[in-house]
Amino acid sequence: MTTNLLTRLRSRGVKNVLLRNLVAEFVGTFLLVFIGTCNVAQFHLGRGKTTTWIGVNIGWGFALMFSVMATANTSGGHLNPAVSLLMWSFGHLPFLWVLLYSVAQTAGAFLAAACTYYFYYETFNHYDRGVRTVLGPMGTGLVFCSYPAPYIGHFTPYLDQIVGTAILCYFVCMTIDERNRIPKVWHPLIFGLLLIMIGTAYGVHLGYPINPARDLGPRLFSFLTHGSGVFSKPYPTYFLAPIIGPLIGALLGGWLYHVSVGMHLPAVETEKLLVGEQEQSLLRKI
Amino acid sequence: MTTNLLTRLRSRGVKNVLLRNLVAEFVGTFLLVFIGTCNVAQFHLGRGKTTTWIGVNIGWGFALMFSVMATANTSGGHLNPAVSLLMWSFGHLPFLWVLLYSVAQTAGAFLAAACTYYFYYETFNHYDRGVRTVLGPMGTGLVFCSYPAPYIGHFTPYLDQIVGTAILCYFVCMTIDERNRIPKVWHPLIFGLLLIMIGTAYGVHLGYPINPARDLGPRLFSFLTHGSGVFSKPYPTYFLAPIIGPLIGALLGGWLYHVSVGMHLPAVETEKLLVGEQEQSLLRKI
Amino acid sequence: MTTNLLTRLRSRGVKNVLLRNLVAEFVGTFLLVFIGTCNVAQFHLGRGKTTTWIGVNIGWGFALMFSVMATANTSGGHLNPAVSLLMWSFGHLPFLWVLLYSVAQTAGAFLAAACTYYFYYETFNHYDRGVRTVLGPMGTGLVFCSYPAPYIGHFTPYLDQIVGTAILCYFVCMTIDERNRIPKVWHPLIFGLLLIMIGTAYGVHLGYPINPARDLGPRLFSFLTHGSGVFSKPYPTYFLAPIIGPLIGALLGGWLYHVSVGMHLPAVETEKLLVGEQEQSLLRKI
Amino acid sequence: MTTNLLTRLRSRGVKNVLLRNLVAEFVGTFLLVFIGTCNVAQFHLGRGKTTTWIGVNIGWGFALMFSVMATANTSGGHLNPAVSLLMWSFGHLPFLWVLLYSVAQTAGAFLAAACTYYFYYETFNHYDRGVRTVLGPMGTGLVFCSYPAPYIGHFTPYLDQIVGTAILCYFVCMTIDERNRIPKVWHPLIFGLLLIMIGTAYGVHLGYPINPARDLGPRLFSFLTHGSGVFSKPYPTYFLAPIIGPLIGALLGGWLYHVSVGMHLPAVETEKLLVGEQEQSLLRKI
Repeated sequence: MTTNLLTRLRSRGVKNVLLRNLVAEFVGTFLLVFIGTCNVAQFHLGRGKTTTWIGVNIGWGFALMFSVMATANTSGGHLNPAVSLLMWSFGHLPFLWVLLYSVAQTAGAFLAAACTYYFYYETFNHYDRGVRTVLGPMGTGLVFCSYPAPYIGHFTPYLDQIVGTAILCYFVCMTIDERNRIPKVWHPLIFGLLLIMIGTAYGVHLGYPINPARDLGPRLFSFLTHGSGVFSKPYPTYFLAPIIGPLIGALLGGWLYHVSVGMHLPAVETEKLLVGEQEQSLLRKI
Repeated sequence: MTTNLLTRLRSRGVKNVLLRNLVAEFVGTFLLVFIGTCNVAQFHLGRGKTTTWIGVNIGWGFALMFSVMATANTSGGHLNPAVSLLMWSFGHLPFLWVLLYSVAQTAGAFLAAACTYYFYYETFNHYDRGVRTVLGPMGTGLVFCSYPAPYIGHFTPYLDQIVGTAILCYFVCMTIDERNRIPKVWHPLIFGLLLIMIGTAYGVHLGYPINPARDLGPRLFSFLTHGSGVFSKPYPTYFLAPIIGPLIGALLGGWLYHVSVGMHLPAVETEKLLVGEQEQSLLRKI
Repeated sequence: MTTNLLTRLRSRGVKNVLLRNLVAEFVGTFLLVFIGTCNVAQFHLGRGKTTTWIGVNIGWGFALMFSVMATANTSGGHLNPAVSLLMWSFGHLPFLWVLLYSVAQTAGAFLAAACTYYFYYETFNHYDRGVRTVLGPMGTGLVFCSYPAPYIGHFTPYLDQIVGTAILCYFVCMTIDERNRIPKVWHPLIFGLLLIMIGTAYGVHLGYPINPARDLGPRLFSFLTHGSGVFSKPYPTYFLAPIIGPLIGALLGGWLYHVSVGMHLPAVETEKLLVGEQEQSLLRKI
Repeated sequence: MTTNLLTRLRSRGVKNVLLRNLVAEFVGTFLLVFIGTCNVAQFHLGRGKTTTWIGVNIGWGFALMFSVMATANTSGGHLNPAVSLLMWSFGHLPFLWVLLYSVAQTAGAFLAAACTYYFYYETFNHYDRGVRTVLGPMGTGLVFCSYPAPYIGHFTPYLDQIVGTAILCYFVCMTIDERNRIPKVWHPLIFGLLLIMIGTAYGVHLGYPINPARDLGPRLFSFLTHGSGVFSKPYPTYFLAPIIGPLIGALLGGWLYHVSVGMHLPAVETEKLLVGEQEQSLLRKI
């Protein structure tokens, strides 16, 4: 059914697993953040006419669903350094890979921010008449990355990111735990619904970045367009909170799942592995 | 694929079924109410800027979906004393367990309210300038638990809670009735959609607590922060309605399902149980 | 796992298929219309504070999903005289049954309207200060049944109902067509999404009753509470449109599906029936 | 279970595959655009009272889901010349078919616009007092086809359409790639969620036509009702962007999927084809 070109392409698929996975993490995070920040641009620059908060939640949720769907079968679809760190803590990948994944993810998010900027370039100009400011009535910085609500102190951003990422990773671990027998094909949808839920409950303080690459990559890009204010506003060390918070929160949430629920579940019997072959051929088409 | 640490954890899973289930009910109700009340805080304290009513419905719905998903394979994921009472009426668990489950659920909801309070502490202060009042223009009591709309009399809260919980339990019984052959893995999603539906139709009077633990636990916590008004406003016995109403409604709705529809369905053939082994191994991976 | 009481109940399930189906249609339409009109009450009486239009769409959609889910395995879950008529045209049930189903459905919708009225009695009084009027600024008639927008003429309501019901029945026939191989367990969800879609596109003229029982049953009830205006406003024969229109539209849409797409699909092979037994036992648990 | 009439109809199904597919593409695009433009009419003519932006996104998304569902088993459910062109580039259909499909799709969209116009005729008159203008405060042109926001230049519409359609086709290719093992029955739902996502992120510039037939067909119809302004406003060559842009974007996005992810996925084993018969009979009922 496929042309020679597609068949030939496939025969040249990257064989090096690490390289293939890094490409997947780069591409997946690019897709997630490009769709997600365009979504925020539509909300913020559109001044509420072309979307509402629930639209932002649904847009980010489905962006996660689709970008994980595209990459789950190669790199596992982490798309988030905090998730990669958690998977390392379970022994699923070496620590060096976590670092390389994180670089690929952040680079993907950086490129995504650049694409969002040029995609909505005229809309930015229409909104702020060509003068880029980070915050304030004409500010467009939060299209790219998180800034705290004005009344928020220095501790709350850490709390916020730890809790939000812990909720994310608690339920990610629940979903992928084989003992819960959730069909693999639906994991990305479940992650999407999960992010929608988090957006409806934990978005007041900073939005809900809960992903160091998603926050740092676009912040680095907006440094080029908006100047050094992106790292100094509202106070100089704020930008560290959505980097450090998620890393702590992911470990906390993931292990809390296993301690509170996962470790008490009955094991999946090993006989499964024996009949596995027939199943797999069956499942391939289901 | 898992490290020694995770494997070692799993080998120490709690063997005592009751204890394991109480932990699950505590944790599950904690998750449900923590996510749910943060959701309400985002709606109420955000003054409509960071969510809308449908966002509240979707947030609570998915909170139920995910917290049931996490606990269905251990305790059954009741997370609601009214549901536990109903399951007792079907002979699924002893009455003593209902009492213990209810205590665990209420304790989980209490802890959840405390976490919501400290999570959104600065947002509370921003909203009411640090003066906690239960109701009124600066009131924040309804972030935690239900209060009736001002024009509501003494009888309607009972009616409301009986009807809302009856709708919930009618369809919960429909979903778990094996004769309807709904795949078990999707039950939590269906419960989530069910709660969204209830929120769109039965939320005017009091919100839609329909869960004694979800209402009483946070009310007890807010007694510590908001004072005795949480039990006396708008009138002294109000708080009993979202406790007693759901217990009656659950029994009514659950049994009504069986009388109106369930008992007339053809039985599932027993031969299923004979081929069950092969199926189960198959389903484990689906 | 079940108590003696439940087991005893089940042994007394109604054996007469027609009686059982009429009970199911009565109960299913009751549930659909009770949830749906409470939903409209929340929208209309809440003056936009406790729901939005998309909440109304989602509420009605899930109400259909759940009420069909509850009754699909007994009566087929028509819950709509127009659907019953269409099924008769395919030879799925005798014409007398269509009449009896329609009566049961309309009676269920009548009872549902009564329950909505007493459920939201205080909210009605709060809204209109106890004076029931059909239309106008204090009017509450449209909580129960459809009234056309003021600028609509006499022909458009028929057009509207024919088109809306045709869209409904086109896709209902597509969903239940075995040649499309859509898993039966998901049909109710698909119907729910379908109704949400119809609500987002065909709701301007009259709302989107597209169901004679859903419109006539509550209209009859509101005759008791709102007086004869419910049959004479805005003009005396209006109420016939949401009765006659859907009956025409259902036949049109259902047969149009078969003519435009269904009849050209390849048949499902009969060998399926031979392996059917093993499949069925498998599917029972999936 | 079916009457003689339905059985007789089915025995006369069109045997010519091309003809059958053209009918399916015509009907499917008609349904998509009829539902979709009615949805936009509800949003635009209703002045925000009867739907919100998220309602528009959901309405278009489900319209795509249902119209693809109805036609996937005959023509493949392209419903978009850009998708047909992409499928040609994979060798799934001859180039002549792409042209014929495109004509059928555009004709279906033309008829759909006519139906929307007469369906909402009174609502149009109520909105603009019977004077059809393309743009401006009384303008109704954008019910039918896209017009750029006033501040948009000549290049951005192309960029917008290329990017939007690339996102669409990237994930369409991911969904239908057998190596991702996504159950075929759920493809239409996934496409629907995809379109919802695109609407939340890429709708500011022009809406999000991303389909030459969806834009040109209704534009041609509105030429009859709104005059030549539909081709000359806001500038004479604008209408080419939502025709040319999607064709480029589809090829770009589709092949980018295969280059970035698809070609690196492990092949599906051929043994699948051997056990395929049993599976297929099984899957028919799942």
